[in-house]
Amino acid sequence: MKKLESLSLRYENGKLSVLDQRLLPQQEVWRSVPNPQVIIELIQCLAVRGAPMIGISAALSLAAYSLEEKSESRLRVAARALRESRPTAVNLMNYMDRMIEALDQQGPDALEEEAIRIFEEDVELCRKMAERGAELIQDGDSILTHCNTGALATAGVGTALGVIRVAHESGKKIHVYVDETRPLLQGARLTAWELQKLNIPFTLICDNMAASLMKQKKVQKVFVGADRIACNGDVANKIGTYGLAVVAHYHQVPFYVVAPSTTLDPNCKEGANIPIEERDPEEVRAGKALSSTKVWNPAFDVTPRALIRGIILEDRVL
Amino acid sequence: MKKLESLSLRYENGKLSVLDQRLLPQQEVWRSVPNPQVIIELIQCLAVRGAPMIGISAALSLAAYSLEEKSESRLRVAARALRESRPTAVNLMNYMDRMIEALDQQGPDALEEEAIRIFEEDVELCRKMAERGAELIQDGDSILTHCNTGALATAGVGTALGVIRVAHESGKKIHVYVDETRPLLQGARLTAWELQKLNIPFTLICDNMAASLMKQKKVQKVFVGADRIACNGDVANKIGTYGLAVVAHYHQVPFYVVAPSTTLDPNCKEGANIPIEERDPEEVRAGKALSSTKVWNPAFDVTPRALIRGIILEDRVL
Repeated sequence: MKKLESLSLRYENGKLSVLDQRLLPQQEVWRSVPNPQVIIELIQCLAVRGAPMIGISAALSLAAYSLEEKSESRLRVAARALRESRPTAVNLMNYMDRMIEALDQQGPDALEEEAIRIFEEDVELCRKMAERGAELIQDGDSILTHCNTGALATAGVGTALGVIRVAHESGKKIHVYVDETRPLLQGARLTAWELQKLNIPFTLICDNMAASLMKQKKVQKVFVGADRIACNGDVANKIGTYGLAVVAHYHQVPFYVVAPSTTLDPNCKEGANIPIEERDPEEVRAGKALSSTKVWNPAFDVTPRALIRGIILEDRVL
Repeated sequence: MKKLESLSLRYENGKLSVLDQRLLPQQEVWRSVPNPQVIIELIQCLAVRGAPMIGISAALSLAAYSLEEKSESRLRVAARALRESRPTAVNLMNYMDRMIEALDQQGPDALEEEAIRIFEEDVELCRKMAERGAELIQDGDSILTHCNTGALATAGVGTALGVIRVAHESGKKIHVYVDETRPLLQGARLTAWELQKLNIPFTLICDNMAASLMKQKKVQKVFVGADRIACNGDVANKIGTYGLAVVAHYHQVPFYVVAPSTTLDPNCKEGANIPIEERDPEEVRAGKALSSTKVWNPAFDVTPRALIRGIILEDRVL
């Protein structure tokens, strides 16, 4: 039987387990995923996150389920529930649509193979994007990134962070500035952890320091990921991306999006049509603001095409 | 003997005490200030903060000290140490220069009177700025603010938050969006607490959500305070102010600074000359990032005059 392993996911003998990303970097705790309902909960609480990884782990949980559950209708119900676990990142929907199609056309026994293919394809997509994007990075560049788009968020080297990694591994001397990415601090907790493991020099900043950094000409390029790309090139990504694109535009710092073509949504005409998930106010209050405090907590924002220098896909640059 | 009282400071019978703003909003703990060294420490750890309040509390601590210490040279040493307790906000330097001048010209016995005058003047400065600024707010406006610029930060109603308060008290229906203000969350902890006490409707956001809010046309005006204003109109204020000014400019949202003339620095030609304090990386790591993580933590940034619609002083609008 096939064994799959990435930085945040393991699949072996029909058993799926995932790294609980809420506890990083202090603790590395793996959660076993005995059924699809468990991965839905882990996705919704952000123990599992990153647009590609959400879709990959959902597909593999359905694959594992299909080894014991042969009722097509029950598998279909599970697939639909997985597909709806989070609303913004479209990779999940794309991957679950592939799984449902495999079920419809070839039955339950085709599901594991399809999920494995999705995992392995993502590794390849990451590699190609990273190589393509790394060409844009010059020796000596300082690069700003937002949220986490690395090996934790994908099956491979990552999207935006994969680009940075390959540039570093090719011998270019680079420095990375990491937005902490409020409210859940994926930059401070996850990207910093990955960069430290990779020995890539970096400096952590609060999101609100990025503009000052650019004014001081300390950033040459910005690379971010994407959760959904509309037909017109508008990009939904982690909250804060849009503001970062505006300040990059003001300082004439090139702003790049790195995402696999599984992030494209052919059914979405423009960014305004992308559903933006609003999450629990307690994520923002974080025990610091009074629990009665009213909060607005959108998990994503939309960056219009006009502010983006290029969208780096695995096979082309938009 | 004169009794002074503001939201974060009490002075009576030569005894100064201050509210420990680090513990708000969960706990309201008052610290007594037996000597100038104690207020220096409280200022440096941000238990006492807000450009005017730093200067006022430093002046009153010297006043209290002068009631028992009559050596002019010792008082002068204390005054200089107070003056240097933080480098960016210039109100502290302006007020301590007044105290040193009173000492030079009239001796130790003049110090208490001078400090009381500084306190009472600030109450009046706040009232005048607030009334002037409130005229700019329309019924129905939503206003974004950054950091804390209210009664906690001054002896009176505050600067930017004083404007908001007076607009609300004059019967205008307004809504306030409060930037949480990383890393020390003065917005989430202090401004939210003040607005709740004042019954002014507000919503807390992360700093990186402000651009999305403006894109959705949910903000009509931005009001912030200042720590130092250069001769050319460049403004140093809490980190994040500059990025906010850039996104406000991009969305054509008017951006106002509210500050007393004690914030003007006639010796500072332009913003680039303002010393920017860099603080402990642990403020940013906050137990979430690994303690080995390299951090850039400037406490302030500089917003160029071109991005500011108006600077509201007590006697005029620049």
